[in-house]
Amino acid sequence: MGKKTAAVLGAGSWGTVLATVLADNGFEVIMWARRESTVQEINEHHRNSRYIPDVHLPRSIRATTSIEGAIRDREMVLFVVPSQSMREVARAAAPHLRKDALIIHASKGFELDSLKRMSEVLKEELPTGLREKIAVLSGPSHAEEVAKKSPTTVVVSSERQQTAELAQSYLINPYFRVYTNPDMVGVEIGGSLKNIIALGAGLSDGLGFGDNAKAALVTRGLAEITRLGMAMGARPITFAGLAGVGDLVVTCTSRHSRNWRAGHMLSQGMSLDEVLERMGMVVEGVKTTRAAYRLAQQYQVEMPITNELHAVLFDRKDPRQAVEDLMCRGKTNEMEEIVQGW
Amino acid sequence: MGKKTAAVLGAGSWGTVLATVLADNGFEVIMWARRESTVQEINEHHRNSRYIPDVHLPRSIRATTSIEGAIRDREMVLFVVPSQSMREVARAAAPHLRKDALIIHASKGFELDSLKRMSEVLKEELPTGLREKIAVLSGPSHAEEVAKKSPTTVVVSSERQQTAELAQSYLINPYFRVYTNPDMVGVEIGGSLKNIIALGAGLSDGLGFGDNAKAALVTRGLAEITRLGMAMGARPITFAGLAGVGDLVVTCTSRHSRNWRAGHMLSQGMSLDEVLERMGMVVEGVKTTRAAYRLAQQYQVEMPITNELHAVLFDRKDPRQAVEDLMCRGKTNEMEEIVQGW
Repeated sequence: MGKKTAAVLGAGSWGTVLATVLADNGFEVIMWARRESTVQEINEHHRNSRYIPDVHLPRSIRATTSIEGAIRDREMVLFVVPSQSMREVARAAAPHLRKDALIIHASKGFELDSLKRMSEVLKEELPTGLREKIAVLSGPSHAEEVAKKSPTTVVVSSERQQTAELAQSYLINPYFRVYTNPDMVGVEIGGSLKNIIALGAGLSDGLGFGDNAKAALVTRGLAEITRLGMAMGARPITFAGLAGVGDLVVTCTSRHSRNWRAGHMLSQGMSLDEVLERMGMVVEGVKTTRAAYRLAQQYQVEMPITNELHAVLFDRKDPRQAVEDLMCRGKTNEMEEIVQGW
Repeated sequence: MGKKTAAVLGAGSWGTVLATVLADNGFEVIMWARRESTVQEINEHHRNSRYIPDVHLPRSIRATTSIEGAIRDREMVLFVVPSQSMREVARAAAPHLRKDALIIHASKGFELDSLKRMSEVLKEELPTGLREKIAVLSGPSHAEEVAKKSPTTVVVSSERQQTAELAQSYLINPYFRVYTNPDMVGVEIGGSLKNIIALGAGLSDGLGFGDNAKAALVTRGLAEITRLGMAMGARPITFAGLAGVGDLVVTCTSRHSRNWRAGHMLSQGMSLDEVLERMGMVVEGVKTTRAAYRLAQQYQVEMPITNELHAVLFDRKDPRQAVEDLMCRGKTNEMEEIVQGW
């Protein structure tokens, strides 16, 4: 019996590092990238310097610009592309997937037009027979640290237990600890919405507010993520786990985070367009803020932090004013939306 | 009508800064300190350089070494003393309290001998008529930042709603946002147990593990805090709020935290005795680890992080081995203790 085989679609920092995890786990891995130059650098120099400069890739990882070439006959296919590209990539992949392939996505965000979660998009685009073979991977996992084999915990979820457990068995190793969680809706929502709060954390830090203010933002942010998640069918307890609190904490307190950095730049007076140009990578939190703003209206859920961020990003509201408006809201019983009081 | 009056018992960093908040809110404040030198410095130089060096105190704050002198006729008395001194200070204060005084404590920890919460100790020691006038203040609030009037959110709780709301009305101001919460047990437990996780976070950082590992520690720490809290009668939702997640995040991610610093020193190979001597201040997390270890046995709750910390602190277990043992535990469905799976 030969080596197990996997394809990773998307050669950003996370896709690249997930490829190294799979290579460490004994998989033969092929990555799909859009850019010829990225493919060449991976194949010839075993590096992806644009996205994850300091990492040397195992020689068992190869790359191609052909989706068909990447996924044909592969037992497992990981989708690690920006959320707004998921449908297009899934559609291109669909005809070439093995009939019993395991599908895992590790993308955070909603499709902006439809407000759908990534697994919903995949379900619509992939062959019917694969619907129960779709899993999501999420959790507190800066790519740079996983590349250094620093201890990391993540979550996989699927509508079908067997699918989640198969994904877990392929991905787990001594530095990459994979838990399963039965709540796929919650895992996808938690991972996506935390990027909004990370933008806010970068703003708050950039304005010179302290750790107390940021802890308030994280806590109240978690509360509004949980409210929207529950309205969309998630279990509240998921947001107390790795895909909720865990991911929120790591994204809000670490300078590795793209969303934090984008928020920080905004606080220094740059416009959104300038920030996005300067970043040169997708900042999922920006589109997620738009999506969550609409979802909050659709599900009639109160999301004050999302609303203020939306105003800062798209109506050029002064960030300092936004923070002040958040601090001076009327409600003063922290539990009143959720449980009965005395 | 004269100014409202308050006493603050305890002149550590948090007591001192709470005194400045009350002074800002128009209170005439008198602080009680054990040390004559502290009292003198506050009265003559308006500073408390041992505990909070860079802060200039308003002139309306005075200090005394006499508990009776501090609290006689005061409308509000704040107890901000180390948890192992609470009973002794409460006993000394009891005969001199006004019959309708409002009592607030802001101490984090359990009495080690009895494993009682601070409000339980106060109830036992203060006059019967004051039992319903006891409130707790907790939440993510580094003293240094509150002193700079950096935006901060905290929680007050009491068995009686009116008491919590009175405490809120006295303490709230534009930079110090006070929420009420009806779950006094949860607020006290959350504030106390987070110090254990903060020790662990300092250890993890000191050993060179990254933000992913710390996020895992915070998330799994929150889960075990919630488990013990529920067994002791707290509401789980409280741990998702300011006294839970909020306080945990701020204590684990900021170098202001004494418990984090103590954990960091331990990771560098110092013994517990050396660390405590070097700190020169009470490190609540150390005694709280002992208390929580016993409480976990008493309530038959699984607390793996507390157990490992206990072994590091009191049995000189190698910290690196402790982290590895935590990472390699058997359970792999993150929700299995709490909800049904698929």
